[in-house]
Parts: sequence; structure tokens; C-alpha cells
Amino acid sequence: MPSQFVLGDEGMYLYNELPLQKLKEKFDFEPTEAWAEHLRLSSVRFNSGGSGSFISSDGLVLTNHHVASETLQKLSSADRDLIADGYLARSQEEELRAPDLELNQLVGIEDVTEQVNAGVSSKDPAEAAEQRRAAIATIEKQSKEKTGLRSDVITLYGGAKYHLYRYRKYTDVRLVWAPETAAAFFGGDADNFEYPRYNLDATIMRVYEDGKPAKLDHFLSWRQGKLNDGELVFVSGNPGRTQRIFTVAALKYLRDDRLPYVLDFLRRKEILMQQFSLGGAEAKRRARDELFGIQNARKAYLGMLAGLQDPQAIQTKGEREEQVLKILAENAETSELVSAWEEIAEIQGRKREMLGKSVSFRSRPFDIASNLALIAAEDQKPDTDRLRGFTDAARESLLQRVLSTAPIYDDLERVKLTDELSRFMEVRGAEDELVLEVLAGKGPRERAAELIGGTKVNDVAFRQELIDGGIEAVQSSDDPMIKLAQLVEAEYRRLRKINEEIEEEERQAYAEITKAMSNIQDSESYPDATFTLRLAFGEVKGYEQDGQWIDPFTVMSGAYKHAEQHAGQEDFDLPPSWMNAQKSVNSDAQLNFVCTADIIGGNSGSPVVDRKGELVGLIFDGNIQSLTSDYVYSDQQARAVSVAGTGILEALKSIYNAKGLAESIGK
Amino acid sequence: MPSQFVLGDEGMYLYNELPLQKLKEKFDFEPTEAWAEHLRLSSVRFNSGGSGSFISSDGLVLTNHHVASETLQKLSSADRDLIADGYLARSQEEELRAPDLELNQLVGIEDVTEQVNAGVSSKDPAEAAEQRRAAIATIEKQSKEKTGLRSDVITLYGGAKYHLYRYRKYTDVRLVWAPETAAAFFGGDADNFEYPRYNLDATIMRVYEDGKPAKLDHFLSWRQGKLNDGELVFVSGNPGRTQRIFTVAALKYLRDDRLPYVLDFLRRKEILMQQFSLGGAEAKRRARDELFGIQNARKAYLGMLAGLQDPQAIQTKGEREEQVLKILAENAETSELVSAWEEIAEIQGRKREMLGKSVSFRSRPFDIASNLALIAAEDQKPDTDRLRGFTDAARESLLQRVLSTAPIYDDLERVKLTDELSRFMEVRGAEDELVLEVLAGKGPRERAAELIGGTKVNDVAFRQELIDGGIEAVQSSDDPMIKLAQLVEAEYRRLRKINEEIEEEERQAYAEITKAMSNIQDSESYPDATFTLRLAFGEVKGYEQDGQWIDPFTVMSGAYKHAEQHAGQEDFDLPPSWMNAQKSVNSDAQLNFVCTADIIGGNSGSPVVDRKGELVGLIFDGNIQSLTSDYVYSDQQARAVSVAGTGILEALKSIYNAKGLAESIGK
Repeated sequence: MPSQFVLGDEGMYLYNELPLQKLKEKFDFEPTEAWAEHLRLSSVRFNSGGSGSFISSDGLVLTNHHVASETLQKLSSADRDLIADGYLARSQEEELRAPDLELNQLVGIEDVTEQVNAGVSSKDPAEAAEQRRAAIATIEKQSKEKTGLRSDVITLYGGAKYHLYRYRKYTDVRLVWAPETAAAFFGGDADNFEYPRYNLDATIMRVYEDGKPAKLDHFLSWRQGKLNDGELVFVSGNPGRTQRIFTVAALKYLRDDRLPYVLDFLRRKEILMQQFSLGGAEAKRRARDELFGIQNARKAYLGMLAGLQDPQAIQTKGEREEQVLKILAENAETSELVSAWEEIAEIQGRKREMLGKSVSFRSRPFDIASNLALIAAEDQKPDTDRLRGFTDAARESLLQRVLSTAPIYDDLERVKLTDELSRFMEVRGAEDELVLEVLAGKGPRERAAELIGGTKVNDVAFRQELIDGGIEAVQSSDDPMIKLAQLVEAEYRRLRKINEEIEEEERQAYAEITKAMSNIQDSESYPDATFTLRLAFGEVKGYEQDGQWIDPFTVMSGAYKHAEQHAGQEDFDLPPSWMNAQKSVNSDAQLNFVCTADIIGGNSGSPVVDRKGELVGLIFDGNIQSLTSDYVYSDQQARAVSVAGTGILEALKSIYNAKGLAESIGK
Repeated sequence: MPSQFVLGDEGMYLYNELPLQKLKEKFDFEPTEAWAEHLRLSSVRFNSGGSGSFISSDGLVLTNHHVASETLQKLSSADRDLIADGYLARSQEEELRAPDLELNQLVGIEDVTEQVNAGVSSKDPAEAAEQRRAAIATIEKQSKEKTGLRSDVITLYGGAKYHLYRYRKYTDVRLVWAPETAAAFFGGDADNFEYPRYNLDATIMRVYEDGKPAKLDHFLSWRQGKLNDGELVFVSGNPGRTQRIFTVAALKYLRDDRLPYVLDFLRRKEILMQQFSLGGAEAKRRARDELFGIQNARKAYLGMLAGLQDPQAIQTKGEREEQVLKILAENAETSELVSAWEEIAEIQGRKREMLGKSVSFRSRPFDIASNLALIAAEDQKPDTDRLRGFTDAARESLLQRVLSTAPIYDDLERVKLTDELSRFMEVRGAEDELVLEVLAGKGPRERAAELIGGTKVNDVAFRQELIDGGIEAVQSSDDPMIKLAQLVEAEYRRLRKINEEIEEEERQAYAEITKAMSNIQDSESYPDATFTLRLAFGEVKGYEQDGQWIDPFTVMSGAYKHAEQHAGQEDFDLPPSWMNAQKSVNSDAQLNFVCTADIIGGNSGSPVVDRKGELVGLIFDGNIQSLTSDYVYSDQQARAVSVAGTGILEALKSIYNAKGLAESIGK
């Protein structure tokens, strides 16, 4: 975005396009290349959807509890509830290996825009999308072959630039320490996105190589001593997705169609998981992580919708857009670019039509079956012709997911698949031909029971057999879930193709818009978030809310007070470990803090560092006022919320009896 | 429905069309007129939505706790939580007057079909609907003037018959005893619609006349001793609505459009109320009754949808329909009647278009304001031209609701209205002209805060002033909620008119269908439920579920066992009163039982009586298999669930220390 439209501490900058001028001007700070490289190489991406950082020379990784919780869930069973009880490995032997985690360290960035565009010659969007996919697959494959590194081509600025990101992968990741959910998610859904907060939303893992703790050259040292109000801090993490380039037409589509649709969907799944949880303690445990994810998304989307339904938001955006369009129209050289905005408006109507159209039933056994069927079919094609995610370059990551040993619970999957089949009937109509074939003359509940009861995909060895057996094995399989996956495969491919066409046209239009914008003013800018590594900056800073000043920091004693004030409310009981340590804990130790850095979902687990590059915090949330930052940044009230590094150390020492671990951090 | 299509113990019979032949044939039972009259006059309707019965000569009324809970909620405050703690009046002085309850006792039925139809001459549906409304209003007005009784013309058999029901009204209704919700709704949402059950879902009230307990000639005596497996029982209550006359096209509309729509709506409101409840104990108390109602409806609708999504249901219905249409088509005299089915199919498309179109924002202050505006406007017209519900005959009941002193909570109403405004934007589009006027340049939250903060309709005296002031007072009012009600009034009338037209056409088509069906076979039959008094019958009878036989009875000791088995789960703790009495309570006393009688929502609180007309139970639920009974009855697994009369007496004596009350019952 041209800087004329970049506000305050806005921006999620590419590591190869850092806002040096802005940092110099506003903060008199000039990061060296070494400073940036060290921070980049100390940052990791959790491919399950989050960020983290290396915090010791022997492979320790810090992230959020809520980023790790999917793994905690997968490592839990009826007898071992890591989600409820937390965990502490007393020795390396006790560190628990995650069944399917992949961590990525960004080791290199290369601009490949010209190579990608050189491969696209067709004017037809469908064909252009194919060509672009092939060009990208070729670049990724060559890079992977040359370097042995995971190689992803990233689409930036809505398609105006393509960068090749090379990652070192860590797939042997083990759990070292996690607090109880009662401490990590203290205040539950009620406090989620609120501030002040008192959450120890932190977990420590360790990456291994060849069965031994990885030896790391780059890891963050930890700041000793308090963080100060007004300090400049940096956030290095992987923001998932922003939509700041969106035109007013695109925002209206979000407001009027997409967000209401997604919210109906989320509420439906939330009630479904709640109902399943009523089945007892074990049912509740099984559904817990998924329910949390749904609730978190529902609250976030509600905030986004509320922001868009406030006429001020779209009006402001509209005024800026008019200004831009006016400048463009006035100049003969740029006047043609205006059509890109019209194209975006036209595309929204087609996106509307695709809402809800999916045959990707959200159930783990179906997802596995579907991937097995696609792997077999895609392997019949040359690498460059394959669907994204099924190329040779992506194979390792795909197999790690498909062959995950994470437990699958039939009772939970039956309920989920029942609802998906029911929803499939609702969306396409009960008399749609594919619906009739999928349901096979039964009601959703009966059909789901038959599928879940009859499939063998829960068995990892069975999956491996099908992968080894290739297309013949898949096509001759009489497994009901595999057969279902094959039944809907053609429709899956048809829908995916339409969506890819829409995306290609949208990409081209946004690339035009980006070009148009850079015509107006060329300056330090940043592309919308793409779940790749970015650097954001900001100040530790309180804010006013309902006429009251909110201090940027909370301290340990505040957690105990907060529990007292909400006695009797669900999710407001601190765990026994905290209650037992109340007298010995340093009550003044900083626990949470807010800053103005520009973050979004995916940044969860990002390290927060000071000018020296020393860790001072761990991003875990945004406040409720920040929920609109998906499409517009503001630093008036919107804040990123972090766990303070000092709070984590204090908790490890005084509450979790993990002095050894605390002392190995930062070294 | 012709008896060829009436199954087992199916039927909710009119008191003036009792199934005498069937009762004689199957049960060798011949009720006398006196038997039926006594039962009818001992039955009452709760106009808030439920049933009940007179159970003593001095005005005691038995109903469900969940029927009374709206009143318990209205009588509660931050300091007195009747919902949680229950209540026992130790003297008549302690009996608490409900702020807006109206109970109706059906004292007479008259067939007025000819008079109604004589008033309808137009072929135009809109005009015909007007004429019918006027004819009905005239009949009701004349009856009210003649008898002084509440007089309602009821549309039966989808419009084939009109009966005039005359009711004695009781508007001074006081709370005598209610158990804790933990006992009444033991097992919560998890156990709702399940069986076996252990719920004391009962509450006792008393009707007053002229400030004194009403002296009643008709009330139910209570059976002494146990109820037996296989016994014939009767249910006398007010089933709310069934749709058994529905054609296959109408059921498909339910399956594909209406039920998915309603479920999205309910889930939305459920999450909204849950989120509000997270605000603390008092917030939870304020939202509790509404949340329960929503959850109950959501579970019921989900069951209905699941039933319709099972292809068997519609197929069976379709085969019956084909059979009927074939018989009709074969006969020249009846072949024309087939077009009614086509008309119903056509009407479903128009109903689909109206889904969600409403300007009746679900918030109590708006509802009051809207009624105040409508009263003023309707009073300008002659009685027969007024909207249904605004005629002279209906005035008393209307004013009781509008002038209710039930507490209104601004925080809750703000949240509800915010969501309604947000939904209004979603349904009509954010740029709809009326939406823009309603939102007045603000976001839903800000606008709702302004409306709720600015209105005076919470004040009953203010409402009375506006009623007294008439149209001038309303039109000159600067109250923001009154102004909002006036702003949307034209649209309200427009939508209501379209809906009434659709209903009129549907009524006429179903009247044709009823005529057609009675052409095929004339026999003992019953019209779809209309929230008016009906008699159902059935046997006390267990059933098989998942290969296991479910006994029809549960006993007191079962409740304690059930609590033990679900220890630690929400809503499975028996209240202290029960735990303290565990040793002294008669553990073998029957607590709940099931029977095959044909019931539906609205029957809640209905007395269950034996051949002698003695009370043996109190309907409070249907099992999960009965949720499809909205459109098809089955006695294979579907059962009505009751509290046993003996269980209520035992609880009063041994648990609630209310021996005096127990002894006054049935006398």
C-alpha cells in the first residue's frame, strides 16, 4: 500500500522490503542486516497454523498454548489429558513427539516474478491459471532439487509479485512444557479478544534432527528485566491473511454475503461440538480443541462483521478509493487501470454463487480418503500438471499429514460427518443427483454411521498400502470412504477449477490495482498477509476504552484478582498449580502487555523482541478493537496482546517447578 | 385425516368429535358426556404457550416447570432467583402474582363454518382474506358481547371447518410452588427429549377471582396408587401445531428451506444468549429462560429435520399421497380436487421467498413500541377492519401483554436488538432504503444502544399514557423506539398482508384437500393441532431402542443413580433438597413414565388421566423418536413423557416439606 495510505505503525513487512526509512524517522532505529537475519532465522512457522521462535541453542521452540493445542489434543487420550492438565518433561526422554507437526525456518527469499509471468501467455483465465500453476510448480521443483529445501512460491501484492521462499523443515518436534488450559486460556471464551488479560498462553517444544535435539546457530536471547511503556518492539511471525487491498465492492461482498455465511456455518459447528461435548467428560475432551477453534473464529468473524456493518468503515474506505480512482482517471497513462476495480466488483458476484459449494466433507476419515484418492490420481500426471499440494516438492509435507498417527474418534467423526451430509443435502437440495448418490438411499445419520463404521482409513498401515498400491489399489478398493471420495472426486475437481479461475482473475485484477497504486506513490509498503514471515513494529502503549485508560501491562497478582472477581464463572478458576504458588510467585512480574504492532491470525506464537533483538514477549491475541484489522489497520484502540517473557520465566520457576527449563532458555 | 391413514393411537381429537368408536373397539371404553365435560372443564390453557389442569376446589393449577418458567423468570430479580432456587408459598399471602399470565378454560364450542364462509364472496385471495377476517371478527365480537367470554374462532382442518371457542379467562394467577431447575430440568439440554428421564418438571399455581382463590366445580382428583404398564390413559391439552395434512411438496419445503432456515436462526440466537450469559451470574440468570427456550426448539427442529432428511419419511408420505391422488383422479366427481395439491406446491415457492422477511425486531421494548403504534392506528378503524389481535374482543388479552410489569433488562435487550439490526442488514442488504433509515447512519451496536438507552417504553405508566393519548400521542411522540416502530409500520403491514394472502390460499387449498380426503373415507378423524383443547389417548408402554427394552417407568431412586452416573457433568447435580431427602424419600415411587398418546409442543403441562378421569401424570416432553410427530405419528418408538402424579406428591411430602399443599391436592 502506498505510504500515503499507511497509518501509524501499520504494516506487515517482507524481510526483503523492511521499512527502514520509517523506522529511522519515527524511532531513530536502524536495524542492521545481521539484526534482521538473526531475527528471521530465529523465527519459525507452525504449518498447523501459527508462529514460534527458537529460544535455545539446543532446539527449544516457544509458541502459544493455543497453537500447540492441536498437538496436545493429538497426544492426549482418555487417560492422559494434556489439554486439561498441561505437561512438563523432566528429561529429554519424556519429551513427547508430535504426530504430524512441521516447523519451517525461512532461510532464503528470491524474487521470481519475471519467471512466473514469463510462463503465462494465455488470455483465458482458466488456461492462464493452469500455466501459472505449472510455472510455479517448475520453479518449486527445481529449487527443491537444487537445494533440498522446502520451496514455496508466494503470491504477493495480490499477484503483482512472486517470491520464492526456501525453508528448512523440522518434522521431529517434541513437547517439553505446556501449562493447564485453565492458565493458558484463563477467562475462556468470555475473555477471548478482551483486555486486560492474564493468560499464560505459552508452550515450549523442541525440534530434533536425527533423533537428537537440533543444534541451532540462531535463537533469541531473553531480555532480563521489565519491558517499559512506550518502548519500540518488533513482531516476527506469519500473519495468515489480510484483505487490505480489497476494494469497496469486495468489502461489501464480505459484509453482505461471505461473513454472514461463514458465521452461520461456524455457529452450526459450535452447537454441534457443544452438543457432542454434553456426552460426558471424555466426549468433552475429544471435542475440546475443535470447539475452541470454532469459538475463536466465530468471535473474530463477528467482530469483523460488526466493523463492516458500521457504515463508517466502508465510507472511509470508499473515500480513499474515490480519491485513488480520481487521480488515476485524470492521467491518460493510468486511466485504463480503473477497470480493475470494476472487474473486482464483477468477480464478487461469482464468489457469491460459489458460497457453500463444496464436496470436502469436514471429517478426518473423509479427508484422509479424499487425499489418498487424489494422490493416486495426481501421480498419474507429470509433476507440473498436478494440483497444487500434490507435486513432488510438496509430497513430504502432504504425506506427513495423511499418514499422521493422531487418534481418530469414531463417535466424534460420526457426528461431524452426519452434519456434513445433512448440510450437503441442504445446500444442494435433497434431490440433487450427487446428493442422492452420496446418501445412497439413507438419512445422513445412518449413512455416516455406515461410512465411519465401515472404513479402514483410521489404520495408518492401510493408508500406506493404498499409497504404495497407487491408482489400481485405490480404484479396486471396496472401502466405503475411499469409494465416497472417488464418487465426489469429479465434482471436487470441477469446483476447484472454478475457484482457481476466479482466484486467477482476482489475482490479475489486484495485480493491476497494486500497479495503479504504486503509480500514484512509490514508497515503503507491504503486501497483504500470506501466512509467510513478516516483520511488524509498534510501541508498547495503553488505550482508552469507554472513557477509561487501559494500562498496557498486567502483572501476576492481577490474575489472582481476576479469578476472585469472577468466582463461580466457568473458565475463571486458576489451576491448583497457580493457587498453590500464590504466596511464592513474584506478584509484580509482568504477565501480559499490549502494543500497536500490526498483527493478524497466524501471528499467534510470534516472538516480540526489543531493539536489541531480545525476546520480551509472545503474541497470543488481538483485542476486540483489532478484529477489523483484517481489512483496515488502526492504532487508536486496536492492540496486539502478548504474554510477557518475564511472566513465562516467572511461571516456569515459581509455579511449574521447572527451574532447569527456565535456566536453559535463551542459552 | 381419514382413519385409513390414522395409525395406532394417533389423534388429537376435538372435544366435540371424540373417537368413541375407536375407544370402544380397541379399549372397550365408552366415555360418558359427563366424563368428557369434566375433563374439558378441568383443563386449562396457558396463553404463554402450554397446558395445565385444575387440581383442587380452591383454584390450584398444575403445569410444567418449563411452562411456568417464563413467569418464574419475570418474578425473579438479582436478589431472588426463583428459576434456580424454586419457591414454596407457606401461606396464601406468600403466593406471588404473575405479571401477565392468562389462563383459559374452554366452556363451549360452536360450529360457525357456515357463518364464516357466508362472509367470503371474493375470488381474489387478498380480498377473501380480508372478508374472512371481518366475518370472524364479527362472530367473535358478537359472542363476546353476548356471553362476556373470550371468544375465538378457530380454523380447523386447514380451513374446512371453523369453530367458535368460548373461554373463561383467569388473569390473576399466582405461584404456589416450583422446584429448583436442577430438579425440574435435571440432565439439562443433554437429557432433553431423551428417555429414561427423572425430571420433576412440575409447578403449582393458583387462580384467583376478585382477589380470592377461585372456587372451582371442576378439578381433577388424583389417583391413589401406582399406574400400571399397559393402562389406557388420556391427555387433555393444547397441542400447538402439527402439519400432518401437509402434502409432500409442503414437507419438501420444510426439509429444504424452512427448517434449515429456522435452525440457522435458532443457532444464532443460542450463541448470542450463551455469549451474553458469559457476562456473569446475573447475566446468566437474565438470559436463562430465553436460552432454554431456544435450545429446546433447536433440538426439536433438528430432530424434525433429521426425520425429513431420512428418505423413508417422505417416501412413505409420497406413496400415501399417490394412492389418494389416484383414487381421486379415477372418479369424475373428485378428479378436479387434485389441483389443490398442485396449488400447495406452488404456494411453497412463495413461502420460500418470504423466509426471513420481517421487521418485527425481537426485543421486548421494540415489541411494546410496535404494539403501541399498532393499537393507536388500528383504533382509528371500525372493529371488523382491524388486524387480528387488535379487535375489541382481543383487547383485554393484548393489553395484559403490552402493560405487563415483567422486568426488562437493558443490557440484554441491547444485545438482542443489536443482533436483530445486524440480521436485518444481512437479510435485506446493507444498502436497502429501509435498512438505511432504520440504522440511521450508525452500526447495529451503536444504534441499538441509542434506542434502548433513549426509550421510555420500559415504564408501564408511559405505555398507558400512549394508549390513553391515542394516535395523536403516538404520532407526536419523540421516543426513539416509538419512532422506529412507526418507521417500519408500513412495511410490517405490507409483509403481514402478503403472508395473510399466502395463508388464505393455503387454507383454501387444504380445505379442498380435507374435502377430498373425506370423500375417500368418512370416519373418526382429527384436525391438525391449533393450540386449542384436544383429547389424545394411548397406552402406558415401553419400547425398544438400540436393541434394548426401555421400561415405561422410572422411580425416585433412579434419579439419584442417574446423578451418580453423570457426576461432574453440568446439569446433572440434584439440588440440596433432593440430596438431603435421599434417605427419607420413597425410592420406589414412580417419577416419570411414557405412553403412546399423540402429543406435540403446547401439550406441555397437560394432565394425563386414567379411565376414571383421575390424574396419573403430567406431560412434559416427547422422546427423541417423537420429534417427527409434527408431520407423522408413530407408536413404534415415539412416546410422550410424563411426570407421574405419585412422584409429584412424594416430592412435595418428602423433599419439599410441603405436606399441607400435597394434602390439599385433588380436594
